Amino acid sequence: MVLADVDTPALVLDLDVFEANLRTLQDWARRHDVALRPHAKAHKCPEIALRQIALGARGVCVQKVSEALPFVAAGIADIHISNEVVGEAKLALLAQLARRARISVCVDHAENVAALSRAVAAQGARVDVLVEIDVGQGRCGVASPTAALELARRVESLPGLRFAGIQAYHGSLQHRRGHAERAQACLESAARARQCAEVLHEHGYACPIITGGGTGSAEFDGPGDVYTELQAGSYAFMDVDYGANEWAGELKFGNSLFLLGTVMSVPTPDRAVLDVGLKSTTIECGLPKVHERDNLQYVAANDEHGVLRVAAGTAAPALGEKLRLVPSHVDPTFNLHSELVAVRGGVVEGVWPIAARGLSR
Amino acid sequence: MVLADVDTPALVLDLDVFEANLRTLQDWARRHDVALRPHAKAHKCPEIALRQIALGARGVCVQKVSEALPFVAAGIADIHISNEVVGEAKLALLAQLARRARISVCVDHAENVAALSRAVAAQGARVDVLVEIDVGQGRCGVASPTAALELARRVESLPGLRFAGIQAYHGSLQHRRGHAERAQACLESAARARQCAEVLHEHGYACPIITGGGTGSAEFDGPGDVYTELQAGSYAFMDVDYGANEWAGELKFGNSLFLLGTVMSVPTPDRAVLDVGLKSTTIECGLPKVHERDNLQYVAANDEHGVLRVAAGTAAPALGEKLRLVPSHVDPTFNLHSELVAVRGGVVEGVWPIAARGLSR
Repeated sequence: MVLADVDTPALVLDLDVFEANLRTLQDWARRHDVALRPHAKAHKCPEIALRQIALGARGVCVQKVSEALPFVAAGIADIHISNEVVGEAKLALLAQLARRARISVCVDHAENVAALSRAVAAQGARVDVLVEIDVGQGRCGVASPTAALELARRVESLPGLRFAGIQAYHGSLQHRRGHAERAQACLESAARARQCAEVLHEHGYACPIITGGGTGSAEFDGPGDVYTELQAGSYAFMDVDYGANEWAGELKFGNSLFLLGTVMSVPTPDRAVLDVGLKSTTIECGLPKVHERDNLQYVAANDEHGVLRVAAGTAAPALGEKLRLVPSHVDPTFNLHSELVAVRGGVVEGVWPIAARGLSR
Repeated sequence: MVLADVDTPALVLDLDVFEANLRTLQDWARRHDVALRPHAKAHKCPEIALRQIALGARGVCVQKVSEALPFVAAGIADIHISNEVVGEAKLALLAQLARRARISVCVDHAENVAALSRAVAAQGARVDVLVEIDVGQGRCGVASPTAALELARRVESLPGLRFAGIQAYHGSLQHRRGHAERAQACLESAARARQCAEVLHEHGYACPIITGGGTGSAEFDGPGDVYTELQAGSYAFMDVDYGANEWAGELKFGNSLFLLGTVMSVPTPDRAVLDVGLKSTTIECGLPKVHERDNLQYVAANDEHGVLRVAAGTAAPALGEKLRLVPSHVDPTFNLHSELVAVRGGVVEGVWPIAARGLSR
C-alpha cells in the first residue's frame, strides 16, 4: 500500500525522519551524560515508546495515570507520571500499576501524599515520589525549597513511598523563540531547581532524580549539571509551533508527522477545501501548514473543513488531490486520531494504534 | 451512582435541561411548519439522535460518510450527509449505506457527481443529491444559480442519483452576536437560496428540500418560506460561544453539557489547577467557563491542565473538589470523549457511547 491509497484524514509518520530525530536526541543525551525519558503524552503510542527505549531511553513519562495503561500493557517497565494524581479511583489504579512496573509520580500537597500512601500501602505496592517545584511556569508545584523539604519529609515518613527527587519542568519557556533568550530562561529555571536540590541535600534528602526539560529546552538543560533526565516528547515529530523556534545550536529535528487530507471542493480559482478540520487537527498553537506547496495556505479550520487560499496566478489543487499538512501542535493532534500510518519512501510499513488516545484520567 | 462519584475529566449531560432544549426547538419547528433534522456532528451519539427523532425530528445530518455508520447501525433510517464526499473509498461506503437507509449527500462539482453515480450504480443503490450553494460562507458550494442548474441537470442525467433540492448553510453567521444583525444576515442568505430555487424551478427542477440553518439562525430561517428543514445541532447543549449571542427572540436554550473536572493542585491562594486541558476541551472558540462559581476563572488550557484564577479575597476550591465547566464549542468537545454521562438531579441515569467519535472520514 502506498501513501496515495491511504484514506483521509490520516495521521502519517515519515519513518526516515522520525528515526533520525530519535537518534539525534538519544546520541546527544548519551554524549552529555543525561538520561532520556521521552514524554509519551506527545504520541500516546506504545509502538513509538518501544522504539525510543530500544535506542536507549530509560523509560517514558505519561501525564495521567490512565495514560500509563497501554504502556504497561506493552511491557514498558519504567514509567514516570509527570503530574499530580488526585482522587481515590486514580490512586487505586496507580497502586495497581505499581505492582506491574516501576512507577513514579509527582506531588505538591501534603494531603495528596497521605492519600497516595494509603492507596499504595493498601495494594502492598511501592512508588517513587518526586516533589514538583514551580520553576517559573506558574502551574502546579511548590513555590519554595522549604515547602519541598516539608513534602520530602512527609513522603519518607509514610509507608509505600520513597522520595526520589524533584520535577522541575517549565512548559512555556519551551516556546521562547530566540535561541539566546531560551538559553537564559533555562539557566534561570535550572538555578531554581539546583537551589531546591541543595536545600534538600543539606537536610539529608538526596535527589537521585531531577527531571524536566522539553524539546525546546533539552539543549540547555542537558549539558548543565542540574537535570539528570530529560522529558522531551515533540522532538520525534516537530510541528509548526516548535518550527517557529530559533534552532541555532547542536540540536535540530525534522518534520516527521503529517496530516494527510483530500481536496474535497475547488469552488473558486482562489479557494480549495480540504477534509481536515478541527476534528482532525487542533489550532490553539496556530493553523497547520501545507507541506511543500508554497502557493497554498491553510487559512481557516471549521469542524470538518480546512479552507485553503490559493496564491494569485497559481494553479489550484485538483479535486480529490491529497496534500500533507504539518500539524501546529503535536500532543493534542495525536489525541484526535486512533492510528498512525507509518510510511517509508511513500510506502506504508505499518499502522500503529494510538492506544492511549482519550486516556486523560 | 451520583455525579460526585464520576471520575474526571468527564463529559456530563444534564437531562432535564437537555430534554427541555429538544422540546423547545421541536415544538417551535412544528408550529412554524418546518422540518427539523438535527446535526449529529454536534454530538456523535446515537442515543441522542434516537431521542431527537422520537420527539419528531425527520432524521439526522452527519458531516462525513464514516460518521453515518453508527447512526445507520442504530436504526436511523434517514441521514443527510451535509457535505461533499470525495474519493473512491468514501463513495463506495456511501453507496453501501444507501442500501440500508435513505441517504442524501451534497455536491458542488461535476466530476464528483459522475464519480458518485458510478459508485452508487455499482451497488445498485440510489441516493438523493442536493446541490450545495454558497450563500455567503465562502467555503464549499457553487457560486451561482446557473452553476446549480448545471449540476442539477447533471445529477438527473446519471444513474442512481435523484436531484432533491439545495443545501444553503451559512456557518459564520450563526455567531453574529446581535439579534437584529443576525436576523438581517439570515434574510440575505435566505434570499440567495430563494433566488437559486426559483431559477431551478423555472427550468423544471423542483426543490422539495431546501436545507440549512443552525442554532444561531434557526429562529430566522424557520419562519420564512425558503427553508424546508433546519440542521441545528448545538441547541440541545449550548456552549460559551453560542451563549455569547444575543438571544432576544422566541428561542432560548439552556446549558445542558458540562465538563466535570477535579482540582488537582492548589499551589497558591490565587491559583488552582483542574485536570481538564486541551485533551478534554477545545479552545478555538475561547476558554471554557466555570459553572456557578463566579470567583473562579479558567485562564489557561495546557495539554492536560486547566489553570484557574481565584478572585482576590475569595476562597480557593479544595484539593480534590469537582467543578463543572461549560465547554466553549460543543462539536469538537464531544469528539474528545468516548462517553457521555447522562445525569438527572445529580444521579447518573446512563452512560452513552459517543459512538462516532473520531469518524472523520
